[in-house]
Amino acid sequence: MEFTIKQIAGMLGGEVKGEEGAKINMLAKIQDAKPGQIAFLSNPKYEQFIYTTQASAVIVKKDFLPRKEISTSLILVDDPYISFTTLLEEYHKMVSFQKTGIEQPSFIGENPAIGKGIYRGAFSYIGNNVKIGDNVKIYPHAYIGDNVHIGDNTILHASVKLYSDTRVGKNCVIHSGTVIGSDGFGFAPQADGTYKTIPQLGNVIIEDNVVIGANTVIDCATMFGDSTIIHEGVKLDNLIQIAHNVEIGKNTVIAAQTGISGSTKLGESCMIGGQVGIAGHLVIANRTGAGAQSGISKAVVEGQQLWGSPAFELSKYLRSYALFRNLPALNDRLRELEKKVNSMGVPSERD
Amino acid sequence: MEFTIKQIAGMLGGEVKGEEGAKINMLAKIQDAKPGQIAFLSNPKYEQFIYTTQASAVIVKKDFLPRKEISTSLILVDDPYISFTTLLEEYHKMVSFQKTGIEQPSFIGENPAIGKGIYRGAFSYIGNNVKIGDNVKIYPHAYIGDNVHIGDNTILHASVKLYSDTRVGKNCVIHSGTVIGSDGFGFAPQADGTYKTIPQLGNVIIEDNVVIGANTVIDCATMFGDSTIIHEGVKLDNLIQIAHNVEIGKNTVIAAQTGISGSTKLGESCMIGGQVGIAGHLVIANRTGAGAQSGISKAVVEGQQLWGSPAFELSKYLRSYALFRNLPALNDRLRELEKKVNSMGVPSERD
Amino acid sequence: MEFTIKQIAGMLGGEVKGEEGAKINMLAKIQDAKPGQIAFLSNPKYEQFIYTTQASAVIVKKDFLPRKEISTSLILVDDPYISFTTLLEEYHKMVSFQKTGIEQPSFIGENPAIGKGIYRGAFSYIGNNVKIGDNVKIYPHAYIGDNVHIGDNTILHASVKLYSDTRVGKNCVIHSGTVIGSDGFGFAPQADGTYKTIPQLGNVIIEDNVVIGANTVIDCATMFGDSTIIHEGVKLDNLIQIAHNVEIGKNTVIAAQTGISGSTKLGESCMIGGQVGIAGHLVIANRTGAGAQSGISKAVVEGQQLWGSPAFELSKYLRSYALFRNLPALNDRLRELEKKVNSMGVPSERD
Repeated sequence: MEFTIKQIAGMLGGEVKGEEGAKINMLAKIQDAKPGQIAFLSNPKYEQFIYTTQASAVIVKKDFLPRKEISTSLILVDDPYISFTTLLEEYHKMVSFQKTGIEQPSFIGENPAIGKGIYRGAFSYIGNNVKIGDNVKIYPHAYIGDNVHIGDNTILHASVKLYSDTRVGKNCVIHSGTVIGSDGFGFAPQADGTYKTIPQLGNVIIEDNVVIGANTVIDCATMFGDSTIIHEGVKLDNLIQIAHNVEIGKNTVIAAQTGISGSTKLGESCMIGGQVGIAGHLVIANRTGAGAQSGISKAVVEGQQLWGSPAFELSKYLRSYALFRNLPALNDRLRELEKKVNSMGVPSERD
Repeated sequence: MEFTIKQIAGMLGGEVKGEEGAKINMLAKIQDAKPGQIAFLSNPKYEQFIYTTQASAVIVKKDFLPRKEISTSLILVDDPYISFTTLLEEYHKMVSFQKTGIEQPSFIGENPAIGKGIYRGAFSYIGNNVKIGDNVKIYPHAYIGDNVHIGDNTILHASVKLYSDTRVGKNCVIHSGTVIGSDGFGFAPQADGTYKTIPQLGNVIIEDNVVIGANTVIDCATMFGDSTIIHEGVKLDNLIQIAHNVEIGKNTVIAAQTGISGSTKLGESCMIGGQVGIAGHLVIANRTGAGAQSGISKAVVEGQQLWGSPAFELSKYLRSYALFRNLPALNDRLRELEKKVNSMGVPSERD
Repeated sequence: MEFTIKQIAGMLGGEVKGEEGAKINMLAKIQDAKPGQIAFLSNPKYEQFIYTTQASAVIVKKDFLPRKEISTSLILVDDPYISFTTLLEEYHKMVSFQKTGIEQPSFIGENPAIGKGIYRGAFSYIGNNVKIGDNVKIYPHAYIGDNVHIGDNTILHASVKLYSDTRVGKNCVIHSGTVIGSDGFGFAPQADGTYKTIPQLGNVIIEDNVVIGANTVIDCATMFGDSTIIHEGVKLDNLIQIAHNVEIGKNTVIAAQTGISGSTKLGESCMIGGQVGIAGHLVIANRTGAGAQSGISKAVVEGQQLWGSPAFELSKYLRSYALFRNLPALNDRLRELEKKVNSMGVPSERD
């Protein structure tokens, strides 16, 4: 990134007060900023820093009236925080998509169909019959098996592994070390105690705008023509396990280290905490929430907040758990009552 | 795969009714099949599709009598489902083992001993003094440290990492990103609050017919000459943690995200659910079962079903957990009883 | 390693009894040792083996008096176990640091600053503007993004991934498949149900003497200039999740599969068990202990032992859990008491 203050004001629909030709190459907090950097002032608590900041420019509210002399340029906008966020996003996009070209050595199989603006890092591997859209960024050591399709503007970070026949949509980001399309865990017990491997012949479909963290695993579906499906807009954190034939509904968000067992259909707009386990072959309603470390063992027919293992309604879980913590007191009360009643001289039924 | 209908009937010991020279190159479900594909009909519910399927052949029961005209060829067998499964397995085997030859660049160290029919993917790394059997498939980015031995027909998927001195048997499959032989977690506390690393000098032995999922980790044993051992026929899912000096008995199956702490000996034919934790230095009996998210903290002397954290007998856990869910009701009953007894006017012991 | 018995005795400040010119190239247990190897005898229970061992030398206590003829050389020291441990450490250090030089193909970006005694394995990737200290060992398939700094004597095992701007101190060991600096899990909900990605622009700082296991993930901080920080001497096991802006205090030890949510500050010298979850934005006191599978949901102001999910004081948890196991009995007692009281003929409040 390198823009003049004037150019940045233009992007933000703001007005410059002060020098407008200086070059900006980085964003920073107002108290840490150095020359060449831009900061923002939104919270009045930080106003003191605007009089001493080394930032070349600071984004401020339209009606900001300095109480002392200021050496930095100002960009006047309606909402400095939103403007700064816009710049952050632009900056992030630029950084994310700045790599282009092909580093060597890299490997590409037969019959490729590859778009424009691609980055193929050194030691990246592309198998046969792979289709890749425009502006896709393939970092070093990424592995793309045969017959994989990847949509425009998707980023595969270092050492992402896509097994053969995987489909990845547009505008996806997949972080390092994540594995997509590995065999589902399917074994048929035999009479002699051994297990026979059930061939896993389906694939994984990742729709558009999906973000997947690092070292997560998504297994392929079992049957030909079947898919494990991660629908549009889903966000998955690190170290998550998604088993074969799972389907995750639109805009569902799942925190780190959660595991979803085979053939479960998770609804749309669910929020699943970290280290949650969901059993197999369940249907989970849209907008279900699950607290961290929950274990969901039954179908959920209506979106609700769950907690515990096995999980049930959050408010009920909290009441039960509060009593669990106080079980010693409850036990004491029961014992005292037993003594009292016995002291009344009524014969016990066991007598 | 490309066989004539006649050849496939031969493999299955079945009889062809209809055209037998057409080529088959794929398996599919009867409702989805396209020309060149083969499907099966077992469940009468799906019979309707046999009259419209585009499959070039359908496997049916010997005594199947079509009620309408059929354009596809039939292969008559005793059990269509089993026959189809056999084809699936053959197909899977062919696909799994179809890669051969050496892609470049790849790296091989000094003094290799490598069998026939090998696939060495681009960017695969083989250290010094490595022994590899016949038909071993080493996918791209796999890392094989010094002195590793690998048996016949074993598949290492993309980016599998085997530290030095690892032993892997025959007919094993190890999925992407899995790490075998990393240092055990051993640190000796020092007087100044720091920890000294205990050198980890043993190795890992994986016996024959073991399947290991993606991004799993198996640490090496601590001492020279000691091994972390995964016995014959064990199936491990994704993201599992196996600590140093653990031993896992024959034909034991472990679901995703489970962790086994150092020096524990897990028996044969155990079935361990997902996200289970097993403490260190335990001996767990053959045929032990553990429900998902259990925490096993004590030795298990006789195979039984466990649940909970800390885990105890499944049926007892279910009864306790049912009462846990109803603790508020139990508390209410206790309170009511207290009131009743107090209303009887008996002096409390605390009075 | 190859030293004469005399040289080894010199290292240990011990005295040789017997042949002192023989070469030693390996350490072993006394019962397993072969010629060319050295063992030790500390526990009298193992004395029998010294009369039959094939070891070329055995380290024994100064005052050891053989009761039979001995064919191996002896090295007399004050404490054989400590001396053997010293040798183990020396051996481990030599093995760990024995790789040097540059294997090809490997990749290095612009403007590198690289120290002496480096190992750069085949297919390792070094981005632009990277600074690497002396004796750093970069195993095959390691990925080092732009602007990364790495201190002296640090080891990156195969396929470690360091995102851009990561800082790693001296004497660190990072095991295979671990990802450092991936994007934190930050998404802002939008009115239409989708999520907007919050750009993650900070980095990760790993201080000196940190050991990190395999397939662990540490996310970068959200804001420019902010860092996720792993302080000096921390030891992290395998498959751990450290979210954005987390800080882990000096000499804290965390077992496998534990997850720490965003912005939590974990104190110094904590001991966190396996599969523990810690919620976000918490401050956890120095010397806090957490049992395996705990879920810490509140700030901890004073170092204490915790267990359970949500976690509370260990001793209290044990009492509550003991009663949980016996809830059926407690329920029976309550029911019996209800019957007794009812049989007394007192009218219930509900009557």
